[in-house]
Amino acid sequence: MKNIKLTIEYDGTNYFGWQKQNNALGIQEVIEKAIGKITNEEVELIGSSRTDTGVHASGFVANFKTNSNIPSDRFKDAINSKLPSDIVILRSEEVKEEFHARYNSLGKTYVYTILNRREAKAIGRNYMYHFKQQLNLEDMSRACEYFIGTHDFESFKNKGSSVKTSVRTITELNVSKNGDIIEVKVTADGFLYNMVRIIVGTLLEVGTGKIKPEAIMDILQSKDRTKAGKSAPALGLCLKQVYYN
Amino acid sequence: MKNIKLTIEYDGTNYFGWQKQNNALGIQEVIEKAIGKITNEEVELIGSSRTDTGVHASGFVANFKTNSNIPSDRFKDAINSKLPSDIVILRSEEVKEEFHARYNSLGKTYVYTILNRREAKAIGRNYMYHFKQQLNLEDMSRACEYFIGTHDFESFKNKGSSVKTSVRTITELNVSKNGDIIEVKVTADGFLYNMVRIIVGTLLEVGTGKIKPEAIMDILQSKDRTKAGKSAPALGLCLKQVYYN
Repeated sequence: MKNIKLTIEYDGTNYFGWQKQNNALGIQEVIEKAIGKITNEEVELIGSSRTDTGVHASGFVANFKTNSNIPSDRFKDAINSKLPSDIVILRSEEVKEEFHARYNSLGKTYVYTILNRREAKAIGRNYMYHFKQQLNLEDMSRACEYFIGTHDFESFKNKGSSVKTSVRTITELNVSKNGDIIEVKVTADGFLYNMVRIIVGTLLEVGTGKIKPEAIMDILQSKDRTKAGKSAPALGLCLKQVYYN
Repeated sequence: MKNIKLTIEYDGTNYFGWQKQNNALGIQEVIEKAIGKITNEEVELIGSSRTDTGVHASGFVANFKTNSNIPSDRFKDAINSKLPSDIVILRSEEVKEEFHARYNSLGKTYVYTILNRREAKAIGRNYMYHFKQQLNLEDMSRACEYFIGTHDFESFKNKGSSVKTSVRTITELNVSKNGDIIEVKVTADGFLYNMVRIIVGTLLEVGTGKIKPEAIMDILQSKDRTKAGKSAPALGLCLKQVYYN
C-alpha cells in the first residue's frame, strides 16, 4: 500500500471549508470522490488542518493510502482531470507509510489580505477583506512584535475544537503594504481555532487606534477571549505552506 | 444638465460584455439601472469601448448626463450601493458638457495575463489564461518590437464591427514575467475588434516557436487575418486605463 502526499490549491469561496460534513460540501469530500473515480477505492484523505468556510489555500497538504498502481507523480494530473476548476492538485508524491499530514505538521504559514481603501474592488474580491478605515501600519507592526514567541494564546481562540494546550509559538508575524493592499503574514508551529483571524481582527483594532500596540501583552496575559478583537472575515485568509521534516 | 464621468472596475466573468443587448446581461445595463434607482431618470451610459464576454476592466471609463442634484463625487458611493459586488465605481466627477467617453478617448492600455505552467491555478483562475507549454519570453519580446509604431492591423482584426480604417498606432507592447505569471501590456491610440487577443494569440505562437519573431512584419504586410494567431481567450484580458486630454 502506498502513502501519497498531495499539495493542494483551492478557492474556498464555494465550499463549507475543508472538512467533510453532512448536508454541506467540503473540499475533502470533493477530492476523495475524485480519487475514488480514478482508483475505484474509497480513500480517506487526511488534511493538515481544517480550514473554515470561505478560507483559501495555495499550499494545503493532505495524504491518503492506496493500492492503485498509478505512478505517484501521475496522481496529480489524474485527480485534476476529475476536479472542478476551483480545486487543483499542485503536486503528488509517495511518502513513508507513517507520514500523517496533520500529526507530522511542524508548522504553517498563513497570509491574510486586506484591501484598505474607501472603494471596494471587483477583481479578486473573494480573496481580500475590504476595510475602509485607514490603517496605521506602524502601530500594527509594533503590535506584531508582542505576538512573536511562545505564549498562551487562550485570548486568541474561539470555542469549537478541543486541544490539550493553548500554548503556541509564533516565529513570524508581519504586515506589509503594496498600494491599497495590506498583507499580514504569520508562521507558527500550530494554530488554535480561528487564531489567525482573531490576531488579524485585533491588529485591525490596533490599526484604527482602538487598541494600543503595547496592550497586546495584557491581552495575552488575560487569557480572556473578550479582550482581543473580533475574528476577521474568512475570505481574506489563505493557507500558504505547511512544514514537515 | 451635468455630464458625469465614471471610472469603473468590473469582473467580467458573469456578464456578456459591456454592451447592452437583448436576452443577455451586459455591464452597461446593470450600471444604467443602478443610476436609474438613485436619479429616477433613464440615463444612457456611454462606454469608452465594448469589451467582450469575460473580459475584465480596472479602469473602464463611461459618462452619462443627468439633472440630478447629487454632488458629482457622491455618485460613486450612491451608485455602488445599488451595484452587485463584481462591478465597482472607483471615481465619479463632473466633466465638460461635450465630453464623450468613446469619441474623446486618445488611447487605452490593456494587460493580458497568462499562467505559464503545467498545473492550473484555483485562486484567481478567472483572471488568467492557463497556457501549459513553456513560452520563450525572449522571442516574444523580440516579436513585440515589430508591432510598435503605426501599422495597418487588418491581419489582427476579427469581423464584427465596422471601422473606417484598420490603421492604428501601438506605443507600447511588452511581455514581463513574475514566477509563473506572464503579462502582456499594450497601449495604442485605439484597438480593432479582438485586436489585443489576436496579438496575444500570435505572441503565444511565437513563444512556442510556431511563428518566428521576424515573421510579424510579413503578417502585418499580408493584411490577412489567417496569417496571425488565434484570438487568446477573453478571461486573461483586462482594460487598465483609458486616456483623455
